[in-house]
Amino acid sequence: MDEDGNLNTVDELAALVGGRLWGDGQLLIESVASIEAAKAGEAAFVEDQALLDKAEGCSASLLIVPDGTGELAREIAANVPAIIEVRKPKLAFALIGSVLHPPKQREPLIHESAVVGAGADIALTAYIGPHVSIGENSTIGAGTRVESGVIVGDDVTIGTDCVLHPNVTLYDGVQIGNKVVLHAGVCVGGDGFGYVRDDVGYHKFPQIGTVIIEDDVELGAYSCVDRAALGRTRIGRGTKIDNLVHVGHNCDIGQRVVIAAQTGISGSVVIEDDAVIGGQVGFGDHVRVQSGAIIGSKAGILPGKIVRPGVWWGIPIQPLDAYKRLNAHMGRLPQMRDELKVLSKRLAELEELVKTKS
Amino acid sequence: MDEDGNLNTVDELAALVGGRLWGDGQLLIESVASIEAAKAGEAAFVEDQALLDKAEGCSASLLIVPDGTGELAREIAANVPAIIEVRKPKLAFALIGSVLHPPKQREPLIHESAVVGAGADIALTAYIGPHVSIGENSTIGAGTRVESGVIVGDDVTIGTDCVLHPNVTLYDGVQIGNKVVLHAGVCVGGDGFGYVRDDVGYHKFPQIGTVIIEDDVELGAYSCVDRAALGRTRIGRGTKIDNLVHVGHNCDIGQRVVIAAQTGISGSVVIEDDAVIGGQVGFGDHVRVQSGAIIGSKAGILPGKIVRPGVWWGIPIQPLDAYKRLNAHMGRLPQMRDELKVLSKRLAELEELVKTKS
Amino acid sequence: MDEDGNLNTVDELAALVGGRLWGDGQLLIESVASIEAAKAGEAAFVEDQALLDKAEGCSASLLIVPDGTGELAREIAANVPAIIEVRKPKLAFALIGSVLHPPKQREPLIHESAVVGAGADIALTAYIGPHVSIGENSTIGAGTRVESGVIVGDDVTIGTDCVLHPNVTLYDGVQIGNKVVLHAGVCVGGDGFGYVRDDVGYHKFPQIGTVIIEDDVELGAYSCVDRAALGRTRIGRGTKIDNLVHVGHNCDIGQRVVIAAQTGISGSVVIEDDAVIGGQVGFGDHVRVQSGAIIGSKAGILPGKIVRPGVWWGIPIQPLDAYKRLNAHMGRLPQMRDELKVLSKRLAELEELVKTKS
Repeated sequence: MDEDGNLNTVDELAALVGGRLWGDGQLLIESVASIEAAKAGEAAFVEDQALLDKAEGCSASLLIVPDGTGELAREIAANVPAIIEVRKPKLAFALIGSVLHPPKQREPLIHESAVVGAGADIALTAYIGPHVSIGENSTIGAGTRVESGVIVGDDVTIGTDCVLHPNVTLYDGVQIGNKVVLHAGVCVGGDGFGYVRDDVGYHKFPQIGTVIIEDDVELGAYSCVDRAALGRTRIGRGTKIDNLVHVGHNCDIGQRVVIAAQTGISGSVVIEDDAVIGGQVGFGDHVRVQSGAIIGSKAGILPGKIVRPGVWWGIPIQPLDAYKRLNAHMGRLPQMRDELKVLSKRLAELEELVKTKS
Repeated sequence: MDEDGNLNTVDELAALVGGRLWGDGQLLIESVASIEAAKAGEAAFVEDQALLDKAEGCSASLLIVPDGTGELAREIAANVPAIIEVRKPKLAFALIGSVLHPPKQREPLIHESAVVGAGADIALTAYIGPHVSIGENSTIGAGTRVESGVIVGDDVTIGTDCVLHPNVTLYDGVQIGNKVVLHAGVCVGGDGFGYVRDDVGYHKFPQIGTVIIEDDVELGAYSCVDRAALGRTRIGRGTKIDNLVHVGHNCDIGQRVVIAAQTGISGSVVIEDDAVIGGQVGFGDHVRVQSGAIIGSKAGILPGKIVRPGVWWGIPIQPLDAYKRLNAHMGRLPQMRDELKVLSKRLAELEELVKTKS
Repeated sequence: MDEDGNLNTVDELAALVGGRLWGDGQLLIESVASIEAAKAGEAAFVEDQALLDKAEGCSASLLIVPDGTGELAREIAANVPAIIEVRKPKLAFALIGSVLHPPKQREPLIHESAVVGAGADIALTAYIGPHVSIGENSTIGAGTRVESGVIVGDDVTIGTDCVLHPNVTLYDGVQIGNKVVLHAGVCVGGDGFGYVRDDVGYHKFPQIGTVIIEDDVELGAYSCVDRAALGRTRIGRGTKIDNLVHVGHNCDIGQRVVIAAQTGISGSVVIEDDAVIGGQVGFGDHVRVQSGAIIGSKAGILPGKIVRPGVWWGIPIQPLDAYKRLNAHMGRLPQMRDELKVLSKRLAELEELVKTKS
């Protein structure tokens, strides 16, 4: 590793991913790249033996390939001076990428334009950028980076080694764990959408709970997590959420859940650990998604539904197999209609024939 | 009421909601809570007699229950020292919550980091937080709270007792009424999406109208209300809109309309008073939704459609009953197909039989 | 043209749009308006001869009408002192609007509250508003307007005559062309949503590419364009995107593409020049939309699909004709079911009859 930590030998990278090295272990690698674009000094990968042909003519300095394909890869990618064989090449590539391209580092700082409230406790190694506001009695952990324009309310807790990208808003009292990444404009702790109607109009139902974002969560740009009415809204450890997602009040999202862009989750939805949710999915309130469930993009789930393990699709959701069957049947509707007409005609003729013969 | 205004006796709360009190009227209540979590000093509620069992073992100091259930509630919730009987317990709970948990108060201030344009008129009792920009000739009413990072353009009017949460953007010339709440990042007055195509590409159609947000409106985080092309876009008094909603140019949204998260409303849509719109609904342009209409989540409405009173569902929308019938029919498609095959086979056999006998 | 450039004679406007003038060419026009609202000093238009009746009683000073309708328009709109006949009235109106209502001009400035990083290169004629942050080594071109609260990362390039509305976030290294308009809160260059799963959880796949926004692009409020994993995400010249749109990593959006609000585009989607995409559309990854394709609102496109020229609709998408046929067939399902029952009954009767006669 060089002094900046972002130049590594092939030997070091092979050790990092537990792979088997073919070729020159002393070569220096400075970045990762796609197999089509990789040049000298760069590492690329082939995910699957079937894709090995794409490595022909590759100009990378290092190629990461699946177990058992090293020799073949050396033939196909004849110009590549180093090859690492490993069980999961894409994972190895991701790990190597994270070493060669570490998150941006900032020197500890509280920028002179930042406004910090009374009683706030900011770790010495934290970075607080320009035009940041930090409310009273809020805590920012060691190594956390708070970029320009972020607004942190009062009584907020932010753990260590987090990154808050520009213009994030944290309302009063929310709790953010360690190693959390919040992309631009993420909003945590806005009021849940709950009202009680009377003759005059709508009265806000109390929205006085909080939000807990656990460790290693990443939230995409402008995703919103509303505070609980009473109690708490939770995003579990290691969960990854894409851009423009809405999480309503009192939701409980488990660990290692993945939610793609623009999905909307109504109040009091429970999503258990390891569920996978596509983009633009809509959840009615009080849905429970069980661990092992995978919900396809654009699906719609009615309030109160329990979604069992398996793959689900459609509005309202149904098992993928049933959805495909139904679509196939719908595609045959014109044909069914024709068959119905033919049957009707044949039957009429036969009726006539029988009548005539009587 | 205590000196902070957020500690109240049971007597005071019973009077507030016009309820009948059982038990100790001198008890002090400091917050509301769910019936499961409520502790001493807290108020909880039971919405419906059927749910009264949930009050068993409740540790609240005050329980709000439906008319006619006070005695029963005293038996079930034997540990609760005070019970209020009232016609609408959830509404009473909301009102009590609004008294016990009033919106955050700020001392009047124009923060030294705020930038205020020439001719701006800021009420003496307003709060202007850090890193706020206020344009030229804009007006901020008495008691209005403008939180950190809010950007107000030129010639904007904001009424009294509003709350603008962090990073709200108001473009030039828009008008905001009294007691309006704009959550983080709300954007009012961006250009409508209108272009005229010629051979070279797209030319912007003039987007020079304005936006009027009437009193008591609440808009969720990152909801966008575009300015009119010509004329005005309007959000009527008492209307409540959730997060990440899009309201296009020249829309006219009436009073006490409710719109859930991520709904998108194309240009020139009219939604009359008291309509209720679910989440992720999509409106084509020039739709008119009549008062009394309820539109289910994820529905899609074709341009120019008039949506009459009643409950609507689906893409394109249809009355809920028709939608359910259609779904039932679709579910029977495989069976219909089987029946068709059987009929065809029986008919063929009968034809053969008749032919043979001829 | 007056000294401010926003007062023009009818003669000047007629010359601008290449139209034929009837009436008083010396009249001064100061703004555009709808035909219903236009007053003295204002210009209105009639798009189509069939709509000419709407001009009756019009109080505009200038009316723009289609070729061949000038004389008729003079009769109908008897009070309007000047009429311009032109081939495309709506386009002419847009051009006249752009002259009468030019974009806001700002005097060159770097506001004292702005924070500018080392090595940043800001053109002398640029405007940098309050509370802006500009990172190291970034470039802002001549005539570009950067409004309050915008955050520009390091190594960003922004061309000439752009407008960045409030609270825009540009991550490190992205490139913005000339005459680009980014509405409030646009986010360019956030990490793409790509992870590799292992037994422990999700590891980020490298998101180290960039984004290129070409000339004359306009992006609506809170739209997000993610950086490429490797390589680049591109928005082509003259493309117009509405509010709250998500563009995933490695997408390649061509020139003069139009995308309406809340549409979501997964990774590696290609949209060729001149495609038109409705609102709330969802794209699976690796879709290719060919030039000439029009995709209706709320459509869903499965991953890897090639969308050929023509009009497409539905989930999953199909040609509009097929979609309409299918919808018609579905509407006839109850009737088909009844027919099936009747057939079955008639067949049973006939079977009985034939059997009896045997």
